[in-house]
Amino acid sequence: MSKHEIKVGILGATGAVGQRFVQLLENHPWFRVTALAASERSAGRPYPEAAVWRLDTPIPEAAREMSVTLCEPGLDCDLVFSGLDSSVAGPIEAAFAAAGYAVVSNSKNHRMDDDVPLLVPEVNGDHCRIIDYQRKRRGYDRGFIATNPNCSTIGLTMALKPIADHFGIRQVAVTTMQALSGAGYPGVPSLEILDNVLPYIGEEEDKMERETLKLLGRFRDNRIEHSGIVVSAQCNRVHVQDGHMECVSVSLEKETDTKGLAEALRNHRGLPQELGLPFAPRHPVIVRDEPDRPQPRMDRDAENGMAVTVGRIRPCPVLDMKFVVLSHNTIRGAAGTAIMNAELLRTQGYLD
Amino acid sequence: MSKHEIKVGILGATGAVGQRFVQLLENHPWFRVTALAASERSAGRPYPEAAVWRLDTPIPEAAREMSVTLCEPGLDCDLVFSGLDSSVAGPIEAAFAAAGYAVVSNSKNHRMDDDVPLLVPEVNGDHCRIIDYQRKRRGYDRGFIATNPNCSTIGLTMALKPIADHFGIRQVAVTTMQALSGAGYPGVPSLEILDNVLPYIGEEEDKMERETLKLLGRFRDNRIEHSGIVVSAQCNRVHVQDGHMECVSVSLEKETDTKGLAEALRNHRGLPQELGLPFAPRHPVIVRDEPDRPQPRMDRDAENGMAVTVGRIRPCPVLDMKFVVLSHNTIRGAAGTAIMNAELLRTQGYLD
Amino acid sequence: MSKHEIKVGILGATGAVGQRFVQLLENHPWFRVTALAASERSAGRPYPEAAVWRLDTPIPEAAREMSVTLCEPGLDCDLVFSGLDSSVAGPIEAAFAAAGYAVVSNSKNHRMDDDVPLLVPEVNGDHCRIIDYQRKRRGYDRGFIATNPNCSTIGLTMALKPIADHFGIRQVAVTTMQALSGAGYPGVPSLEILDNVLPYIGEEEDKMERETLKLLGRFRDNRIEHSGIVVSAQCNRVHVQDGHMECVSVSLEKETDTKGLAEALRNHRGLPQELGLPFAPRHPVIVRDEPDRPQPRMDRDAENGMAVTVGRIRPCPVLDMKFVVLSHNTIRGAAGTAIMNAELLRTQGYLD
Amino acid sequence: MSKHEIKVGILGATGAVGQRFVQLLENHPWFRVTALAASERSAGRPYPEAAVWRLDTPIPEAAREMSVTLCEPGLDCDLVFSGLDSSVAGPIEAAFAAAGYAVVSNSKNHRMDDDVPLLVPEVNGDHCRIIDYQRKRRGYDRGFIATNPNCSTIGLTMALKPIADHFGIRQVAVTTMQALSGAGYPGVPSLEILDNVLPYIGEEEDKMERETLKLLGRFRDNRIEHSGIVVSAQCNRVHVQDGHMECVSVSLEKETDTKGLAEALRNHRGLPQELGLPFAPRHPVIVRDEPDRPQPRMDRDAENGMAVTVGRIRPCPVLDMKFVVLSHNTIRGAAGTAIMNAELLRTQGYLD
Repeated sequence: MSKHEIKVGILGATGAVGQRFVQLLENHPWFRVTALAASERSAGRPYPEAAVWRLDTPIPEAAREMSVTLCEPGLDCDLVFSGLDSSVAGPIEAAFAAAGYAVVSNSKNHRMDDDVPLLVPEVNGDHCRIIDYQRKRRGYDRGFIATNPNCSTIGLTMALKPIADHFGIRQVAVTTMQALSGAGYPGVPSLEILDNVLPYIGEEEDKMERETLKLLGRFRDNRIEHSGIVVSAQCNRVHVQDGHMECVSVSLEKETDTKGLAEALRNHRGLPQELGLPFAPRHPVIVRDEPDRPQPRMDRDAENGMAVTVGRIRPCPVLDMKFVVLSHNTIRGAAGTAIMNAELLRTQGYLD
Repeated sequence: MSKHEIKVGILGATGAVGQRFVQLLENHPWFRVTALAASERSAGRPYPEAAVWRLDTPIPEAAREMSVTLCEPGLDCDLVFSGLDSSVAGPIEAAFAAAGYAVVSNSKNHRMDDDVPLLVPEVNGDHCRIIDYQRKRRGYDRGFIATNPNCSTIGLTMALKPIADHFGIRQVAVTTMQALSGAGYPGVPSLEILDNVLPYIGEEEDKMERETLKLLGRFRDNRIEHSGIVVSAQCNRVHVQDGHMECVSVSLEKETDTKGLAEALRNHRGLPQELGLPFAPRHPVIVRDEPDRPQPRMDRDAENGMAVTVGRIRPCPVLDMKFVVLSHNTIRGAAGTAIMNAELLRTQGYLD
Repeated sequence: MSKHEIKVGILGATGAVGQRFVQLLENHPWFRVTALAASERSAGRPYPEAAVWRLDTPIPEAAREMSVTLCEPGLDCDLVFSGLDSSVAGPIEAAFAAAGYAVVSNSKNHRMDDDVPLLVPEVNGDHCRIIDYQRKRRGYDRGFIATNPNCSTIGLTMALKPIADHFGIRQVAVTTMQALSGAGYPGVPSLEILDNVLPYIGEEEDKMERETLKLLGRFRDNRIEHSGIVVSAQCNRVHVQDGHMECVSVSLEKETDTKGLAEALRNHRGLPQELGLPFAPRHPVIVRDEPDRPQPRMDRDAENGMAVTVGRIRPCPVLDMKFVVLSHNTIRGAAGTAIMNAELLRTQGYLD
Repeated sequence: MSKHEIKVGILGATGAVGQRFVQLLENHPWFRVTALAASERSAGRPYPEAAVWRLDTPIPEAAREMSVTLCEPGLDCDLVFSGLDSSVAGPIEAAFAAAGYAVVSNSKNHRMDDDVPLLVPEVNGDHCRIIDYQRKRRGYDRGFIATNPNCSTIGLTMALKPIADHFGIRQVAVTTMQALSGAGYPGVPSLEILDNVLPYIGEEEDKMERETLKLLGRFRDNRIEHSGIVVSAQCNRVHVQDGHMECVSVSLEKETDTKGLAEALRNHRGLPQELGLPFAPRHPVIVRDEPDRPQPRMDRDAENGMAVTVGRIRPCPVLDMKFVVLSHNTIRGAAGTAIMNAELLRTQGYLD
């Protein structure tokens, strides 16, 4: 292990998100997984035994040799990624932060806390500075909590950010068609989704309508001012393994046309691209001109699943413009963004 | 055959819509199928041989014994249902009407003709009176052409009609998740839709945005005044066999709430219900209160596939109210509505 | 209620098999559901609340009004159908039989008991006479236990029986492709079966290899002599909702050809057909000549799901003949056969 | 281009198999694609325009710049891979061979020709020597035709070969569950396979029963003596994108047990492994011990899709042993094996 490597633990390492962390962190240039933590049922067991591995690449060699420990401070690492279930994530993450760990979480529990950054590096990387306030307020020394949004919100805000910057957004109406992996494992029973669509995902619409405002808000005077945009979300589960599709309509403050919107999206570069973060896609937003793209199976793996793909940009008779966004919900929409959040936080000195 | 029975021919009888006509007309109390017509390739062959039967009930006995004829006037019937492909439907339907046949068509060709009714009996049954003008203008004696809208438009307008009547509609934003049977046979290749969503259906958005205005328009002074509502549609193909889902948002002229909207939908009755038409569902719009309904597989067959199901009625932060509509796209959305159109036209004297 | 009607209870009424019992018994000419029993969690609650109804017809009116009771003797009925989970079925069913109830079970627990009939009416209806011995041996007065086989075994033996009768069977090699509903609810997670096949179903191969021998055995001298046939089963789960496909090869004692085998299957009639039992299909085995049938979606509902469909009959280069069998796994393969078992038992006087 | 590189053309480059060739040959150490040929309809057009690219990696850079030419000798290359449709492959391939091209084909047309090797390098690499006889007999100078078997036969024979070598095989009964990509594009309509299994694939059973014998035959005295093994195949299409599953039973000449069979399979190495061919998997047969493997989605990509996975090895009550084989049908089962065939032929001097 090089002296510049950072030791990393994964909370909830046996679950669906935890497995993605383990998979994506294999060979990471900065981070090395040194602890895999999960519930009591798994603790003490070899990782390959405790985790029912569901990804279609093999378990990384390193993880294959490790044993699972309990989710309690004392882990041999400086940074923990949390893929914990929201029923337990809240106090555990707080305990780790209080004990001096950097906590980068995919769980919803602390997302809307005033002093916790809800981060997508290309969207609002500067919000990470709220951590200074968080530490002061909570009396954390080296530790802190940073979060990423809900999967469907990440894809949406990746597309909205350049539009907001160039044209100003007033309203957003979004209808999602979300993949099964978003429900974790075992998740949706096959009998419910075969030859079917489920028009409801618990809390999802509320998350999209609220988290988007924090993400597109402004960091000022040690607080995050939420955006005044109005968002309406309708969320559906469809028969797709990975990749959330979102049909979006927006009303804008400044007029534009199909070409103008496409250019703003296509040219968007954010902090991760400037900083050359290891997980940064070259093009955070890929714009496709074909009439029938994006599609989950064809586009979800673009730039290793870290780019979102936008297509079908056209005028909207009711609002101003409409388009379709596709993002890989468990990479860009969860573990991948969390890892890039940690990369960003390191470059900003929060892991020192 | 009772003397009151009407002899019926089916144009395009071997295709997907044609097969539905054959299936649904078995045992119809008023109509008896006496002619099955299709392209040259099929003409002269026994129907069970010419049609690759794709429905999961057996071919009706009567049809089993019939031979396919060409799609030319001279068929032994008074009424023809047309499930012809739009590449050929236009002139064939006109020829039949000119030759004195009542033509009730599911094809798009004549839908937007000024003098042709675009009918959904519960929505705009009174528009059938434009046939008088059509006959005069085109010099038809007994014949005429009547059409039903595109499948996704039927489901949408069935839900919009009672809302428009009670509260007035200004804007409609709709995102569809449409079934594979809507693409006919062979239709969508399995490799394109397995683990996938297709965000594009040719012409579909345009049809929904335009046909809806004619359907919700007013019949006055021998013309149909199109409605001034603004409609924006985003259409997707999903991995479902039958049943189109539509996520709808509407802005209204008069304020209402979830309960008010639900009641207007639930209590809606139209001409078919008043007249007791054979294919009329008792409840044209079924409203479900469960958070996760409608679903294609659970709700598409409600009232033999002739009712649409609405659920998830709730306020929309961007427009006023939002909800989900589900309709069986090949029954209510095609052959079933066409048959009920013919029933309505008979009660109005157009088949005499 | 007519005085000839028999009062029926359903054990495990909220589960997947229990729901099928409730659905199929609606309007049964002989049986009337008067008790719905389930676990403590459900007891005392209205049935529509306790059962997450998963079938695509509505909950029968009668059941809609009933409350769930505990699975304990004392139910107001004479006959109970058991769809209990095998983890609890054993002692509960025995308790009911001891208390004087006729127990007709779909559970595996008592299937292989020496004194319990394992019944498929068309296959071995005469085995029901073992009940006399059962009553004597166990000291049951009016009560008894009768069972039906595992779903995949039912389809198989329905096809094997006429072959065994006409040609004698020595060996059977069968590979199944089984539907998701066979795993109950929630059953197989969608993430496990989307774009996948699972080559393993716990205990299934063993059940097919053993139960088949009892079914094809002979009732003699108050015992059931198991058949000496050798069976090898390979069981797979595929992405189908209902309908088990089975690719079968058999070696025979007497030579035959495709036509001979087809005729034996097509002409098969059993006790249910002779007796005119309410649930008896006219043709227990439907033989199709098309090269690509049977198919689950096209054939599972043949004769209300009570007929099995055989196709692709042809010589087998390794054994003698091969063919494909399709049966509806939750109707013919579970609740439907159980109900017909009860019908048979009534005609044989066991419900008096 | 290094002087050791071999120029390669692809016949049928726009089709499903052709696209796989283009994809897999990107960055091949020995072969460089210099010609893409297809039908008249495509000839003259840029490849990205002529081919509806269906694979989920982008079109290789090189191919992106190329134009499609006609399938006629004169292509600037020494070796052609043929993914031509069998309706045209026969004479075109012969014409190329006669004109001096090495033709390595995936098409069925010449597979069973006496003087054409039907090759899977791990199974019967030595059969390539029949090319000497072929050249002499047909008067080919430098050219020749070599073929690979049908997709399902490749997976089967990869597993049978080590068994035949160690224990001798007398009989094989195999039931397949084959992926949709095996039918090419557009292939199977989604409406036929959603919630369904198709128990028939044209000619497939015959191919498996016959090609297997040639593959497991012996090269002797300038001829290939077909094996005397008896094979019975039942072929089904299931709802899977890539990856053919096969449930196999074998009767053996020498007795063995689960462990013995597993070891023979696991330790198998063939010519490609000895020679270190670029496309050779380290382990041509991966044996898994879990009860529920192989599975298409989890195992098809093992060793870049070039290894087959065997699981569920256990005794068969009817024959001797049974197991399940999984292979990626468009990589190992088509283009990948063809490429490795060319690699083998190069090491044997046939491309000099």
